[in-house]
Amino acid sequence: MSKEFGSGSSQACASCKHQRKKCEETCELAPFFPASRYREFQNAHKLFGVSNIQKIINSVDPSQRKEAAESILIEGNIRSNDPVHGCLGVVRNLKSQIEYYEKELGAVNQQLPFFRDKEKQHQHQLE
Amino acid sequence: MSKEFGSGSSQACASCKHQRKKCEETCELAPFFPASRYREFQNAHKLFGVSNIQKIINSVDPSQRKEAAESILIEGNIRSNDPVHGCLGVVRNLKSQIEYYEKELGAVNQQLPFFRDKEKQHQHQLE
Repeated sequence: MSKEFGSGSSQACASCKHQRKKCEETCELAPFFPASRYREFQNAHKLFGVSNIQKIINSVDPSQRKEAAESILIEGNIRSNDPVHGCLGVVRNLKSQIEYYEKELGAVNQQLPFFRDKEKQHQHQLE
Repeated sequence: MSKEFGSGSSQACASCKHQRKKCEETCELAPFFPASRYREFQNAHKLFGVSNIQKIINSVDPSQRKEAAESILIEGNIRSNDPVHGCLGVVRNLKSQIEYYEKELGAVNQQLPFFRDKEKQHQHQLE
């Protein structure tokens, strides 16, 4: 591992790159925000700020930090794509899909017993 | 409207209350974050910070600011409930519900043509 870069690569991590500072081996954000996710990190930084990102990461169990970092990056991307609704827009879209499927399933499930009854009647007629 | 409070009520808006400052009539956040949503605002503040909240509100069209504020409050609540996954947790849950419905609907839709065919056959037999 390079002594200069916490991310272990030849590049500073996304957070240090954003802050234009040297990425030390002790950099706590380097394992979660590699240089390859710089653009995403910028979205997350715009939404939360580096200090809040650091706070979220530190507030959760070390075993869950990777997961938390991923959610931070995705949340930043979503808000960047939809500055008005952010995640709420995605949640609403998914909920309306669920509503559609529930209606469809309800309608189809109403038809099945009808056909099953008919089938029984016919079986009966043939006996 | 009270001259002292931008929110138009006898209380400072959630943002001014949080910052322990006087809520002026010119307070830009008062219309979107009433005192009644103080706890939710605290969640949003913890996640984004007042400055970023202000930036999001200002970056969108005035006609969409109420919607943006709502999404900020909800996003704050969701992260407060699930510090690791935030909105991503909700999105994943909804996606797995959709997956379940798609499978169910697929299975039921496979049964319907079978019954319809049977029904046709019986009609034919009775003719």
